[in-house]
This record gives sequence, structure tokens and C-alpha cells, in this order.
Amino acid sequence: MSKSTNVGVTAAKGFRAAGVTAGIKASGTPDLALVVNDGPSLAAAGVFTANRVKAAPVLWSEQVLKGGQVSAVVLNSGGANACTGPLGFQDTHATAEKAAAELGLNAGEVAVASTGLIGVRLPMDLLLPGVALAAGALGEDGGEAAAIAIKTTDTVHKTAEYTSPAGWTVGGMAKGAGMLAPSLATMLVVLTTDADLDSAALDDALRGATRTTFDRIDSDGCMSTNDTVLLLASAASGTVPDRAEFAEAVRTVSADLARQLIGDAEGASKEIRIDVTGAATEDDAVEVARTISRNNLLKCAIHGEDPNWGRVLAAIGTTSAAFDPDGLDVAINGVWVCKSGGVGEDRDLVDMKGREVVITANLNAGTAGATLWTNDLTADYVHENSAYST
Amino acid sequence: MSKSTNVGVTAAKGFRAAGVTAGIKASGTPDLALVVNDGPSLAAAGVFTANRVKAAPVLWSEQVLKGGQVSAVVLNSGGANACTGPLGFQDTHATAEKAAAELGLNAGEVAVASTGLIGVRLPMDLLLPGVALAAGALGEDGGEAAAIAIKTTDTVHKTAEYTSPAGWTVGGMAKGAGMLAPSLATMLVVLTTDADLDSAALDDALRGATRTTFDRIDSDGCMSTNDTVLLLASAASGTVPDRAEFAEAVRTVSADLARQLIGDAEGASKEIRIDVTGAATEDDAVEVARTISRNNLLKCAIHGEDPNWGRVLAAIGTTSAAFDPDGLDVAINGVWVCKSGGVGEDRDLVDMKGREVVITANLNAGTAGATLWTNDLTADYVHENSAYST
Repeated sequence: MSKSTNVGVTAAKGFRAAGVTAGIKASGTPDLALVVNDGPSLAAAGVFTANRVKAAPVLWSEQVLKGGQVSAVVLNSGGANACTGPLGFQDTHATAEKAAAELGLNAGEVAVASTGLIGVRLPMDLLLPGVALAAGALGEDGGEAAAIAIKTTDTVHKTAEYTSPAGWTVGGMAKGAGMLAPSLATMLVVLTTDADLDSAALDDALRGATRTTFDRIDSDGCMSTNDTVLLLASAASGTVPDRAEFAEAVRTVSADLARQLIGDAEGASKEIRIDVTGAATEDDAVEVARTISRNNLLKCAIHGEDPNWGRVLAAIGTTSAAFDPDGLDVAINGVWVCKSGGVGEDRDLVDMKGREVVITANLNAGTAGATLWTNDLTADYVHENSAYST
Repeated sequence: MSKSTNVGVTAAKGFRAAGVTAGIKASGTPDLALVVNDGPSLAAAGVFTANRVKAAPVLWSEQVLKGGQVSAVVLNSGGANACTGPLGFQDTHATAEKAAAELGLNAGEVAVASTGLIGVRLPMDLLLPGVALAAGALGEDGGEAAAIAIKTTDTVHKTAEYTSPAGWTVGGMAKGAGMLAPSLATMLVVLTTDADLDSAALDDALRGATRTTFDRIDSDGCMSTNDTVLLLASAASGTVPDRAEFAEAVRTVSADLARQLIGDAEGASKEIRIDVTGAATEDDAVEVARTISRNNLLKCAIHGEDPNWGRVLAAIGTTSAAFDPDGLDVAINGVWVCKSGGVGEDRDLVDMKGREVVITANLNAGTAGATLWTNDLTADYVHENSAYST
């Protein structure tokens, strides 16, 4: 991946962004981001949470994306605007109208995304002036400021870029540290490109990318009400990209951001890659990987650097995937501690001191596979999430 | 529930039990229990883990129960004998043979149950002499010693009894503190009765009871490889019970033991009752209750005495149950903090200081309901389970 001179959502030509402090967060840190597509194209695609309890900005932005065009995205941290009823939806609508008025746009093409505590109305008396402030601060180098303003419990901001030899770029930013599970992981992501594609092509590329990136991280099994991933194309490069290369570029940037999300998950001390191999189908592999990733006992064991493979087998045994219990092999960091469903190599050979841990489960039932990322379960996670709203 | 003079598995007439120290546990605490049915009837029923990775004693005891008769049960803590292959199965077989030889029984009617670490062979050089020791220690007052010997991370032993005015008794013991999820919860349970019923009637009563008791506790979402619930009937009271009263008695004793399991779950500081009401079907209610019970973020919030109802709604939203997101009501300890999917009564009115917390979710989609018990997620749980095998 080649780095461009600018980062995140403004790495691609045709985009301006800003991140400002509207005062929504009590901490006084930046909490409002604005991303504007200056065109010439406004083509866009979006993927949203599968949670049936959807935040107001998700309901709004789903409607916006049906038109296939997005001219701007307003994102705020400090409040999810979820479970806030019709008044919460009016708040989102007013946010889009405010951005449209400031920028001379059509409100029906302004997407909105929010993140923070569920069940609390946003302070509109602070948010709307913040939108005006952000409009005044827009710049072609605003990608980093925007990425900073969408952080909640994230300890670092997250951006990624890919530039094609053919002259177009895909860039993006992401936030997400807790309630990280598909589909999608709990997060806000905005991807931008200056390639020239219509919304249907963008949608293809985005769904293909999220399926094997954001949908394959699962920090804590908890699905958000606010997950939003947007892909905006300005066509400012004047280049129609090769479709396969573009799809791979979106996948690469998405995988980079997804990996950064897992690397910064709340309270985590380990980043765990789960490779399921020898599955009869990819669906089987994903089911097994996800079930392993959600096993609290295993996540505790890995926190304690304990190669407790019995908990891997106990997790696999709860799935409906095709396998023979006596045919399961499990490796931890390359040591096959379980062979044929029983004791394998010496567990004392496993070195788990590093931050990254790899669990490989071979179902010996076929040739399909999947990789999913998760984290360990720590006292810090408990602490952070038992004190969040108080 | 009336208490009989003896407790647990020896509360009913016709049973003897013992609990001894075989030396399987490094701690030197009791680790082997024996329960013997002296008849005249040997009728029995059993329910086992739904995990497809089943421990050797589960595979053995499932075969024993197919005959509908159990004369004795050998239970050990200190090792699960799971994922131990054909040699592990031979160990279970040898255990049953040893008990049969000591007591003059048919090994094919001796059930075996084990609990402890997965993936480690049992120390048969210690276990088999322990069986002989237990056989010599059997007594009609051995119910408490047996309940003590099956503890692992349990902090207290668990027994329960019910005596009918008609002259028969149901008693039982249970262990289980971690890997507590259906179906069944991770646990060993032996119920005994001196009522006179055949194995089919016992099976009916046992399955009816477990469905709404042991299957409705879910401490940590992790299903064991060793879950075993046995019901043995001696007919020593000479009484054929009323079937409905007997079923209710088995349910009462099972509910009592299940409640004790949740009360002693690893690291827990709260016992959480989840009442789902207004569901279209009982299956919907159970799905919603189980999904709420497995939400780590909510479990952390309750640990922090934070009435974070947004996390309840986010959990409900991931289910396939019938409901309208704008029709959900949620109460915490009787305060309806969420009404019609949005903000309800003042969350500051919720008092969560007590050990027991009640979450009520009304789906407003019908008249069915279900209750499920779980625990909070604590740093102590993480600590206990990150250091378990090391």
C-alpha cells in the first residue's frame, strides 16, 4: 500500500473535511466531523448495522443512500442518538438541514452518523453551531482532524489509504472500540475515492469488502445500533478504474481499518486471529470462527497466556458446522496442542507473550476457510464498560 | 419446600452416598463422590450436554441410561476427562468396572460423571483406589459429603430436597460455577427419589424440569462438554406418586439447585433475573432473554450498577423475535427506564445496590413470556478464568 501525501478521507481528490469541538462531549475534545464531496460525481454506497434497533442517523442515512448520491457526511461522537424516538429523528434531520444550508447542498444528500451513549438526546444547541464551525474549517487536508473528532473510547484515530498506479486513490477513516461485532462491527467508517464509478459499482465493491473485513472482526459480540460504513466517489481523478483493482483497493483499505479497530479495542491486551481451515463451506468456517471469538472463557485464558485448547473445542462443539469431534486439530501460535480431538503437542511449547495470538482450527471436513479477528477479555474491559455512563 | 432430616441425594430413602479425597485435585480437598441406589427399583433417566464435543463420561453414561437403570453413579472433580480420546473412554469404563466390582453391581448400570480441566487424562492410579475408599465410606447420611466432593470452583456445595405429604421425597445435589450455559448449564446434577416410577416417567419429569430450570440459567454463555443431570428412583418409599405432583417436585428441586448455581457463579457480584413478557411465543421470549443474558456490555454495566437500558435494546435488536423497535418497554428493578423504544422514567430512580437485579423486557407482541437467570461480568471472573489451568 502506498501512502499519499494526505490521509484518510481527504487522501482522494475532490474531498474536504474538518474536525471540530462542538462541546457535545463533556471532555472538551473534538466531537464533530464533516466530510464534503466536491465532485464532479456524488456517487455513493452505504452498509449499515443489521441490528433491528437502529439509531436515528442510521434510519436517515439509509434513506439518503437510496438515492445513490451523497454530497456530505456529518459525524458526531458524544451521543449515539439511538432509542430517542421521533424527536431524535428530527434532530438528525435538522443536522442534515443545517449542513445543507451552510454548504448550499440538498439535505436529502447529506448523510449523518452518530456514536456514543444510547438513549440520550443530542445537545442540538451545541451540535448545530458545531456544524457551522466545521463548515468554516473545511480543508483538503482535513482528513486527520475528521478522524480525531469521531473517536469515543478509541485511544488512537484510524486512517488508511491506497493509491493506484492508474492515478486514483481510496482512503478512509474509522472509529470503534467497544460494542464491536458484526454485522457490522460497532463503528463509523467513511471511505472516499476520486475514481469514477456509479453507485451500483460502489455498492458492489463496498459489500464485497465489508463481508470479509468489517464483518470478520468481533471484539465483544455486541452489535451496535449505529454501525455505518459509507463509500463516496468524487471522480475528481478523472479515471474510471479497473473494477477488480478497485474492489481489491476497497478491500485493502477496509481490512487495514478493521485491523486498526481490533488493535484498539476497549481494554484489550491481545489481538487474536482465528483461522478456521478444512471447513466444508465458508459459512461453516465463519460460524466456527465467530463462535470461538465469542467464548468468554477462552478470551480470559488468552488474556492469561494460557493455551487452553479445551475451551476451543468446547466452543466448536456448540456449532452446527460439519466436523467429526475426533477429527479436530487446533494450533495456538503454530503449536498443534490438539490433534484428532485429543491431546497433541506439548502445551508448554506455546509462546503467548506477544500481543498477537493466532488460533488455527482445522475441521478436517473440506477445503474452505475463513479468518476472523477478536480480542481477549480483560479486567480493563470490565472496568471501562461498568463505568461508561456513570 | 419441606426439609427432610437428611440432605441432597440421600434425602430420599433407598440411597447411600459418600464423598472422599482420592488425591485427583492438587488442593487435597474431597474430589470423588459415589451415589448408590439400593432399590428395590433402579429406574433412572438422564439429560446430557448438547455440546457435540462430549466428554468420555458423557458418552459412557448416555449408553448406560439407554438401559433405563442406574445402580450407582461415580462422580469426580479435578478433571473433565474430555478430549482425551479412546484412552479417556477406557478410563471411564475402568471407573465403572471398579465401582461395580466393589459393590457387586453390573458395570453397565454404573453412570460416571467428571468435571474439571478439559484435555487432561485422569490420574487412574489415584482415582481407582478412591472408588474403593468411597465404597467403604457409603452411608445413608452421605448426601452432604458427596455434594462437597463434586465442587470445583464452587465456593459452596449445593443440595435441595422436597418431601411430599404422600410420603415420597425428591432430593439432589449440583455443582457448577463456570462454563455455565445451556444446554445444559455446565454442571453435574444427581437427583434421587424414593417414589416408584419407571424410567419413561422419570424421563418425562426430568426433561420437563430441566427445560425451565437448568436450561434457563446462563452465567457466561459457554457450554460445557460434561453437563450431566441424572434422576434415580429407588421406589423405597413404596409409593407411586401423583404424576403431576412428582413433575412439579422435580421442577422445584431443579429450580432450587439452578438458582444456587447462579448464586455461586465464578466471580459474580450480581444475580440477574431476566423476565421477558409480551412475547408472541415462548421461544421468542427465551431467545430474547438468552441474548440479553449474553451481552457482555450489559453485564459490565450491571456490575457497575449502571441502569444502561440502551444495551438491553441493542441486544434485543439482534434477535429474530417478533417485536416493533418502537414498542419495546424495559424496566430495571421495577423502574420503566425505557418506554416505547425511547427514554422512559428517570434512570436515577433505579436502585441497583442489592445483589439481585431484575430486568423486565416487554416486547408488546403477545402474551408469552420466559424467565432466565444470569450473572454480571466482573474483573474477578476474568481473573479466575485467566489463571485456571496455569
